[in-house]
Amino acid sequence: MQRVAACKGCNPSARGFSRPTHRRPSRRSGAGLVAAGGLSSLASVVESQQFDRPMLEELFEVAREMERITEDGSECKILAGKVMGTLFYEPSTRTRLSFETAMCRLGGKVVSTENAREFSSVAKGETLEDTIRTLEQYVDVVVLRHFQAGSARIAADAASVPLISAGDGPGQHPTQALLDIYTIQKEIGRVDDTKVALVGDLANGRTARSLAYILSKFRNVKLYFVAPDVARINEDIKEHLTECGCEWEEVDNLQSVASEVDVLYQTRIQKERYGDRPEDYEKAQGKFIVDEDLMRLMKQDAVVMHPLPRVGEITPQVDADPRAAYFRQAKNGLYIRMALLATLLKGK
Amino acid sequence: MQRVAACKGCNPSARGFSRPTHRRPSRRSGAGLVAAGGLSSLASVVESQQFDRPMLEELFEVAREMERITEDGSECKILAGKVMGTLFYEPSTRTRLSFETAMCRLGGKVVSTENAREFSSVAKGETLEDTIRTLEQYVDVVVLRHFQAGSARIAADAASVPLISAGDGPGQHPTQALLDIYTIQKEIGRVDDTKVALVGDLANGRTARSLAYILSKFRNVKLYFVAPDVARINEDIKEHLTECGCEWEEVDNLQSVASEVDVLYQTRIQKERYGDRPEDYEKAQGKFIVDEDLMRLMKQDAVVMHPLPRVGEITPQVDADPRAAYFRQAKNGLYIRMALLATLLKGK
Amino acid sequence: MQRVAACKGCNPSARGFSRPTHRRPSRRSGAGLVAAGGLSSLASVVESQQFDRPMLEELFEVAREMERITEDGSECKILAGKVMGTLFYEPSTRTRLSFETAMCRLGGKVVSTENAREFSSVAKGETLEDTIRTLEQYVDVVVLRHFQAGSARIAADAASVPLISAGDGPGQHPTQALLDIYTIQKEIGRVDDTKVALVGDLANGRTARSLAYILSKFRNVKLYFVAPDVARINEDIKEHLTECGCEWEEVDNLQSVASEVDVLYQTRIQKERYGDRPEDYEKAQGKFIVDEDLMRLMKQDAVVMHPLPRVGEITPQVDADPRAAYFRQAKNGLYIRMALLATLLKGK
Repeated sequence: MQRVAACKGCNPSARGFSRPTHRRPSRRSGAGLVAAGGLSSLASVVESQQFDRPMLEELFEVAREMERITEDGSECKILAGKVMGTLFYEPSTRTRLSFETAMCRLGGKVVSTENAREFSSVAKGETLEDTIRTLEQYVDVVVLRHFQAGSARIAADAASVPLISAGDGPGQHPTQALLDIYTIQKEIGRVDDTKVALVGDLANGRTARSLAYILSKFRNVKLYFVAPDVARINEDIKEHLTECGCEWEEVDNLQSVASEVDVLYQTRIQKERYGDRPEDYEKAQGKFIVDEDLMRLMKQDAVVMHPLPRVGEITPQVDADPRAAYFRQAKNGLYIRMALLATLLKGK
Repeated sequence: MQRVAACKGCNPSARGFSRPTHRRPSRRSGAGLVAAGGLSSLASVVESQQFDRPMLEELFEVAREMERITEDGSECKILAGKVMGTLFYEPSTRTRLSFETAMCRLGGKVVSTENAREFSSVAKGETLEDTIRTLEQYVDVVVLRHFQAGSARIAADAASVPLISAGDGPGQHPTQALLDIYTIQKEIGRVDDTKVALVGDLANGRTARSLAYILSKFRNVKLYFVAPDVARINEDIKEHLTECGCEWEEVDNLQSVASEVDVLYQTRIQKERYGDRPEDYEKAQGKFIVDEDLMRLMKQDAVVMHPLPRVGEITPQVDADPRAAYFRQAKNGLYIRMALLATLLKGK
Repeated sequence: MQRVAACKGCNPSARGFSRPTHRRPSRRSGAGLVAAGGLSSLASVVESQQFDRPMLEELFEVAREMERITEDGSECKILAGKVMGTLFYEPSTRTRLSFETAMCRLGGKVVSTENAREFSSVAKGETLEDTIRTLEQYVDVVVLRHFQAGSARIAADAASVPLISAGDGPGQHPTQALLDIYTIQKEIGRVDDTKVALVGDLANGRTARSLAYILSKFRNVKLYFVAPDVARINEDIKEHLTECGCEWEEVDNLQSVASEVDVLYQTRIQKERYGDRPEDYEKAQGKFIVDEDLMRLMKQDAVVMHPLPRVGEITPQVDADPRAAYFRQAKNGLYIRMALLATLLKGK
């Protein structure tokens, strides 16, 4: 069950789940998105496939250092004098506040907009590249949230300062995938040799897709996909996993899986994607609920994760269970974003 | 005219003007909202009734220290390394900027949203409790503005970090009441033994109501209520004052009261609450105006206060009068909010 | 070609292109808008005419110091302990982020609103003066963006803290004019003895107008106006230049001018101002394009400037030309705003 070394899917620009790329050489280092020299040569963060396993391990080490800094509580000056600009073309308050707090906790400062569409309004018609090239005159790092898949890479190519994607539409949300895998490492103590159930809206949620990809870089991971019929995982991911030698199984019964897994990763059925099919939403929403009964089936050292927000797919009674890891998972997002900012900006 | 010691209205959870509460023990300290050990054991700020008289006096002492820090002008590091998150479900720019400046002046940092509804949109359906539990993973203190009465308490119960209410709909706006009473103390030199006229929209404005409650904790305070017929003060407050032994009188003539009082507290007729009754608004708006003629009737050591914004209920000519205290009152809001933040966060 | 010493147009409050003013004496210094004692006595920034030539030279010296500070990269504490409030009545993300970064890079902090209309909503009806007098209780300097010409001066008159205009509707945008002239000085090495073509929407764009005015303070500047018929420069400016002894010429052929000038200042045709005349917009938009062909006609030491955003009036192929100065120009905006903030706040 070793992963196939040369799987194209594990690297950027491979076919299928990654758009072809024709990057002009970065003005910063000439390096591609996958940093040849490991984490220290990272130039921008646009997709989780940039991170190979040694880089992930380096990143986790930095994230642990960030935990120590945060818990220490005294003023940190690692990024004192640095300014981060957040450029959000659609609101994502939770992600924005996590990035902004990360910068603050490192001693840096933040300038911010949630109205980035105004920057390049239809009336004015500025390109994303121009917006980035303007903003980089001011700030030391750009955090971009955009509504179009592929825009993060376009922006990173245009930028001469580091850029971190905070999600690009139906595309990637790399920091979510990184914080998810970091949470598994912290909670379970390993990522290799784990069984992970991905539950809920696997068709529409990029979170579950991204996590599946990143898990395929580890050894002996078994994935269970538990989704309502209307929201099953796409074929491309299953093909990728098979190609990587990562075992997977589609299951229709959450109970049967609950006692098997180390991680139950629940996701929200995204009502906003069922606009014209409310009956499909209702059917999907109620099907797989994590409640106290289900928790009784789970192993004592397993955990429940969720990218949040949740609606009713995990009942509030579960919150008190020490295996409910979703709020700790949110905190890990802070540490991972601190680690990325520190890595990209330290010594620059 | 001593206040009745055991008045239920002066304490949280009492009947009538305070909703019944069934708090689960705070995860922070197990303490109720009224801090048994005085100001230093304060966990969150959700209503002005939390503050008994010794706590108010302690708070004023801290606020005076904040004035010294601010006037000194050099960089203050009391809250260096701390991050405040503002979570505003409705815009209140003035209050938000006051809180944010308060945090900045103490050396802390701020992350902020005025679009908090997006956090828990109808489509996504996150509960306020979940939003708070997520935000508290990032920040050291939450400032909440909400449109529903009672939400501040719900949020404070859910939070494991200190929470300060910046107003919850028609409910409480505790920091406004605290800055008002601090302004009286500063301007008049005392709160006991004062005569205070509350003027304007006493039915709809929570400001006047809150101030009346907090004044009832002091000795020998006489309150005059001067409101248009359509906006008279509610019965519950009059009952509470009577119960406390606090003297009050409803008056229809502002002139007759002006020469009596130490404090004339003017408020804006809230046009937005008269949507379907424009004639009522017009009648109420023009009735009690503070202008230069009225100022001539007032005592030389009296002051005019107003929570701002004003429309025409105090004429601009009054601004030059040294007894016009409303902009100094706004500044006191900064000091009180600094004092609360410093109290809640220092040494944590 | 010397400028006429006493031209009323070069000073504030002169007739024609500057509104009459009846300022009450500033509460800060009693000084008028033109600082008698040079840059150090500057109280507020509301229009570019406040800056005479010695003040501009002083300002440029400070801006150069700001460049050194920024490039040094270490934490700057010049404005540590100071708080800037941005009060934007209309969004202008680019300008706001430039000001906010400027304050951050000087060690100061920022509180910010893009929803300033809420401060004084129709329903509430607060005056701009009251809003300013409230905000100044909190912050050390106000940056105001407003939609009405003249509002910056009204606000500066009301303020007892320094105020900087970030543009007031069709009125002035003084920091843009200052950064433009600073860019010419840096790129060409002088402002005297230059030939400058202003191209594009000269009727609607305040940028070109402001630059023309400020250029008239220098010696032996020749201006070319190159605009489509529907967007020609207004008579008042031409009269002003003639009065100042500044040579100017209206030209219909960009090619013929390109080889002559030291600076080609391109501007965007503002589509939003052609709402009911789309055919006029189309005609104007395509008429004068800066592309690689045009660049071949230009002198080797000339530069192309643009206030940004651009649409198609400079083709992306031009960006790689070292004479393309528009992104460097954006960066100069940061330095000029840092210089103004440092000047207004240092030692206060």
